[in-house]
Amino acid sequence: MNHIELDRSQGKPLHSLVYEYVWNRIQRGEWLEHHKLPSVRVLAEEMKVNRLTVFKAYQQLKEEKKVYVKDKSGYYVQPGVTMPFDDLESPIVFSYVHKSHLSEIHRVPANYQFSYALIDPNLLPNRYFSESMLEIVERYPKMLSTYSTPQGDEELRQSLAHFFANKYGFYLTQNDIMITSGSQQAIDLLARMLVQPMDVVLMERPTYSAAIDMFRNQGAQIVPIDIYPYGYDLEQVEAYMKQFKPRLFYLNPTYHNPTGYTVPIEQRKKLVELAEQYRCLIIEDDPMHDIYFDHKPPLPFFSYSTEGCVIYICSFSKYVAPGLRIAAICCQPTIMKHLLTVKSLADNGTPLLNQKIFLHYFMSERLQQHIVKLRTALSIRKAVMEEALSVTNWKWDSPSGGLNLWIQLPETLSLEKLLAKSIEHSISFVPGSICDPSKELQSWIRLSYSYINEQQIKEGMKLLVQLAEQVDQNHRQI
Amino acid sequence: MNHIELDRSQGKPLHSLVYEYVWNRIQRGEWLEHHKLPSVRVLAEEMKVNRLTVFKAYQQLKEEKKVYVKDKSGYYVQPGVTMPFDDLESPIVFSYVHKSHLSEIHRVPANYQFSYALIDPNLLPNRYFSESMLEIVERYPKMLSTYSTPQGDEELRQSLAHFFANKYGFYLTQNDIMITSGSQQAIDLLARMLVQPMDVVLMERPTYSAAIDMFRNQGAQIVPIDIYPYGYDLEQVEAYMKQFKPRLFYLNPTYHNPTGYTVPIEQRKKLVELAEQYRCLIIEDDPMHDIYFDHKPPLPFFSYSTEGCVIYICSFSKYVAPGLRIAAICCQPTIMKHLLTVKSLADNGTPLLNQKIFLHYFMSERLQQHIVKLRTALSIRKAVMEEALSVTNWKWDSPSGGLNLWIQLPETLSLEKLLAKSIEHSISFVPGSICDPSKELQSWIRLSYSYINEQQIKEGMKLLVQLAEQVDQNHRQI
Repeated sequence: MNHIELDRSQGKPLHSLVYEYVWNRIQRGEWLEHHKLPSVRVLAEEMKVNRLTVFKAYQQLKEEKKVYVKDKSGYYVQPGVTMPFDDLESPIVFSYVHKSHLSEIHRVPANYQFSYALIDPNLLPNRYFSESMLEIVERYPKMLSTYSTPQGDEELRQSLAHFFANKYGFYLTQNDIMITSGSQQAIDLLARMLVQPMDVVLMERPTYSAAIDMFRNQGAQIVPIDIYPYGYDLEQVEAYMKQFKPRLFYLNPTYHNPTGYTVPIEQRKKLVELAEQYRCLIIEDDPMHDIYFDHKPPLPFFSYSTEGCVIYICSFSKYVAPGLRIAAICCQPTIMKHLLTVKSLADNGTPLLNQKIFLHYFMSERLQQHIVKLRTALSIRKAVMEEALSVTNWKWDSPSGGLNLWIQLPETLSLEKLLAKSIEHSISFVPGSICDPSKELQSWIRLSYSYINEQQIKEGMKLLVQLAEQVDQNHRQI
Repeated sequence: MNHIELDRSQGKPLHSLVYEYVWNRIQRGEWLEHHKLPSVRVLAEEMKVNRLTVFKAYQQLKEEKKVYVKDKSGYYVQPGVTMPFDDLESPIVFSYVHKSHLSEIHRVPANYQFSYALIDPNLLPNRYFSESMLEIVERYPKMLSTYSTPQGDEELRQSLAHFFANKYGFYLTQNDIMITSGSQQAIDLLARMLVQPMDVVLMERPTYSAAIDMFRNQGAQIVPIDIYPYGYDLEQVEAYMKQFKPRLFYLNPTYHNPTGYTVPIEQRKKLVELAEQYRCLIIEDDPMHDIYFDHKPPLPFFSYSTEGCVIYICSFSKYVAPGLRIAAICCQPTIMKHLLTVKSLADNGTPLLNQKIFLHYFMSERLQQHIVKLRTALSIRKAVMEEALSVTNWKWDSPSGGLNLWIQLPETLSLEKLLAKSIEHSISFVPGSICDPSKELQSWIRLSYSYINEQQIKEGMKLLVQLAEQVDQNHRQI
């Protein structure tokens, strides 16, 4: 129980003092959107005031739409009322970092988390992970006292080099591979290393929204390349390469996030040729290669690259052991050299512990069995979600792999209203505009079927469809 | 055994082709400084040429000082001959990252590693770590499938809030603390968040050299503040704050790296006042607070801050469990808000596994016992090193904590020659100029006594002193 001293000396009414106390904490960002305010009873005790005094302050905040009420007895901070940082009085603290919208969506607490393109922990072989860890601990007794090099554990890189040779026909040595702390860090390192203010970066539209933030944070100008179920419009790509002389093209061509589309083989070869011709690096982000439902996808772009213009990011986090955060970057030696410098600055090396645990599990038979089961479970969940959608007039291309559905809503449906209503009902999803550098995709949403179970998907989708009907009808009534 | 095809079609002499093959690999950064070239015999077999042909090429490289010879039969890449990246022919790959010199020093393989300001793994309770891990695995069965939030595990942050309250009298909640992947990442995140090109950043001279790189990488102009055994010249500090209006002052005031100096209490209070007055943030990097030999050091700057202008980095990596890479940033809510955005971009959260293992160990009795033993071991190693130095005319202030000696060499001794000779004899250390933003400290070196054992310290120091005598005499002969 805290004790909170209110400044009663200025003659202001007590309920105003309480109001200011709460509103200040919201403004300073101490209590963020959807934070639950202390209960009336508790705050009254802490401040040594009458409960009615606190209630009056809370009601005023509610009327001004600075807080909202839920469950009849709880007050929560309203989204959107916290002042943007440029308006804060104290110039001593301001940040040069662009807001990351995806992280704000993820921070929304919800029972039906359709916004998490992550694998449900219940679908992962947790007991086997535990056994792996015990074996690691035996095998490497000094591991917790030892740092990894910035490039990453040699044994792990050698394993990966073998893996890539067998699986994709990449001919790499361990020197061509760097271990990073997840694919987020991989993209961030590459953005920092390659991009300067005003550099043009090509990105698919839509695309992985955190990647937009990372490139923008380095001052990039983003030029969007539309992605379709059949791939790209290669004439458009070539025209933009000629016109803008982009530094790089960041793409996610296999079970693309958020659309689920897969770029066909012919385009892969052709695009690598264009990249070589126009001296545009390609960053190929490929976390979903193993999450296919029917048949394997085409080989990565990296397979077609002979001049080293493709940088390949392979992430194992999603379905091997997410909590470990392990990914690999494959690239040519000159890029590796500079990457090593950025990695040294960023964290001086991914923890050795995580690399060894990953290595052990990655080499095991169990992993292959696990992936087969995972594919089955995910395709079932996808089917459950698609069944729920079949009663609507919403449109989507059913993906042949990956974790998401990319859905087009009718134009009469306001996405903003739907999102607000959904959050109130404990449903979250990713609105399409977040995935678009130009923020234009106002009628699309991304729903992930990978994180919550079949029952929750069923319930959540039913509720979402109902809410959409309400929003749609409301719109028509106006 | 590789097979290497030489292009014999152009009529060039074979030894030229061999020369070009080797030199290209060096230029491309594939073979870095001190890399051992393939033996003459092996390369001759791989290329299907006469051994004399390879020998001729190697000798030519040696005469041009592109490689050097060691142990009568080994050729090694000479440091400093790899082309700086701006001269590389292919404009497709160039990097905006400044070279990180410290990481290059660390990459030098050496038997007497005086350059590593790290704790010897043999001084850490490895078996206890292993037991901790087993318990963690039992307690948190789904840990490997779960991500941490960007701010870090709540249980850990709560523990740390308690710890800081008891130990330092910081009054923080868990919301004021962020967990990062080591202190390197902490500094990097803060640099990215706070610094724009042309911003002035105050740094001690000398200072932690990787921090120089990190702030430079954001375009900072570094203004050095000299640090002395008694602290800073506060008049100089105030004058610079007035003149340059610096964005922030990065400092390491307790068993400072590299000098070992500790800033006294009176200066701590005064400096916080100056920072508040001139609106200059202070980043206090404090990894050595527990590594004292006689008595505890003064309370951190952070204790004296009432307006939130001090950001406190507490690193546990060094002596708790280095391999885990766990550190904490303590700061006010507005800074935390922006820090969360950068952290989301950088890696979206430190792995939960590492945080839980750390938490478990951190809360244990065993840790306190361990730290006591560690202090004793380190003070012994320091004494061994100082004994070896007592026969020289080198000068140093004996530190009352930390991992390093900061030593001033006589002016007649060329540091560059000493470093080169030392490396040839498998000794490495950190030359002072690396720790100086203005690169002026040409007569100082940092020697760490923490990483290698007493016997190795004794041998290595004896050898270093001998080499210095040779270099000094050589110089006098000229």
